[in-house]
Amino acid sequence: MRFTIRNTLVLIGLAAAFWLAYARRAGAAPPEADKPASAAEGNESAPATQKKGPRTLGIVLYPKFELLDVYGPAEIFGNLPGKLKVVMVAERAGEVRSAQGPKVVADYGFDDCPPLDLVLVPGGFGTITELKNVALMDWLRARAENAEIMMSVCSGSALLAKAGLLDGRRATSNKRYFQFAVGAGPDVEWVYKARWVDDGDRVTSSGVSAGIDMALHVVERLYGTKTAENLADQTEYQWHRDADDDPFAKTGE
Amino acid sequence: MRFTIRNTLVLIGLAAAFWLAYARRAGAAPPEADKPASAAEGNESAPATQKKGPRTLGIVLYPKFELLDVYGPAEIFGNLPGKLKVVMVAERAGEVRSAQGPKVVADYGFDDCPPLDLVLVPGGFGTITELKNVALMDWLRARAENAEIMMSVCSGSALLAKAGLLDGRRATSNKRYFQFAVGAGPDVEWVYKARWVDDGDRVTSSGVSAGIDMALHVVERLYGTKTAENLADQTEYQWHRDADDDPFAKTGE
Repeated sequence: MRFTIRNTLVLIGLAAAFWLAYARRAGAAPPEADKPASAAEGNESAPATQKKGPRTLGIVLYPKFELLDVYGPAEIFGNLPGKLKVVMVAERAGEVRSAQGPKVVADYGFDDCPPLDLVLVPGGFGTITELKNVALMDWLRARAENAEIMMSVCSGSALLAKAGLLDGRRATSNKRYFQFAVGAGPDVEWVYKARWVDDGDRVTSSGVSAGIDMALHVVERLYGTKTAENLADQTEYQWHRDADDDPFAKTGE
Repeated sequence: MRFTIRNTLVLIGLAAAFWLAYARRAGAAPPEADKPASAAEGNESAPATQKKGPRTLGIVLYPKFELLDVYGPAEIFGNLPGKLKVVMVAERAGEVRSAQGPKVVADYGFDDCPPLDLVLVPGGFGTITELKNVALMDWLRARAENAEIMMSVCSGSALLAKAGLLDGRRATSNKRYFQFAVGAGPDVEWVYKARWVDDGDRVTSSGVSAGIDMALHVVERLYGTKTAENLADQTEYQWHRDADDDPFAKTGE
């Protein structure tokens, strides 16, 4: 393709169309057309909690976290401009290396992290080390006092459990290392066969990709079905909408 | 849960079990049980290209890239220790901000990036700006000369197309902004209805999540069906294995 005047004009036109589509997508949907749904009662009722203004989601990073546990949900929650802001938090701000190698950036440390409405804890091989991280446990407990929802993906539920934040609650974890989570939370009502488990202010998902389904569920709960469906369509993701349908639960463990 | 001796021993035992399972998973499968499959001829035949030693995949980052375009494939390719290494590349090494806000790290700049066997170009809102980035176009063309496969996710195919690397080739792009890609590559044989398109040393995927399916396909092609199936199971991802089955292609456009 050469830079003829015609081609340049076509490109400018396409860029403008792209921009307009993006701006439209970024705008809030009419509230009457897209009422938030409660987790327990389906799409008809009002949300369990009301929040004025945009929410902030803090995703916790630690060495050897699993990449998709973080960036599956971050893709979903990060495409709600004006409604929700995603920030990355680690014990110390700066670079954090994932289990797969690539490094990412924590915007905040535990000591300077702003108030969070939502918290998400990923899993990954680093979970083993973090189970002994007292600073993380203390931070999770402190943040749980004011958070609307504490979430986890994969073995991240072992960390929430170890902090005592799932005691007496229903929760799930990834299927390959399910007993690892069970061991970290003997007082948790563990649900083996579940894509995700919504227990109100605690929502935990099964392994890795299941975090995307959980994120769409939480978006539906907070912002309504149409917003969640639009995000799934935009990201060309076939949303698994049934929390009880877990194709990776191979036995009745 | 308190730190009784019993609980501590249980945790140590679980950590050891986790570690052993991880080490086993990280080990290479017996080659006779897991022959690589060619893209064109199914699972029975030998791979089109042979590569000795581990491959290096370079994923290109630029301002306002789409998070899941990068970290969906990075999750898949990044879980092949000993076989494949994932590095992040940008025009300049250091922090890069995604379209969704979170910042990540480019390990290398264009000038100091090591040899790459595989290259992946993500999409995202930043594509519009990058279409005019001569340094990126030059770098993509130079890398394509020695790369085994040049890949793209979502509107990333517009960048490969603009660099002339898809001329006369079959390729796809995301569904919402398909005409954007078409405009950037008038000499490309664009395929609207496709989850991904494998044209040998060019493999392009549809929008965002489709990059995960494409990555699993490329893993199958390079390392065999069992390796790809194991990765899908490990990440609890329901792999869409039919490249022609595109649920987001809504018209015959």
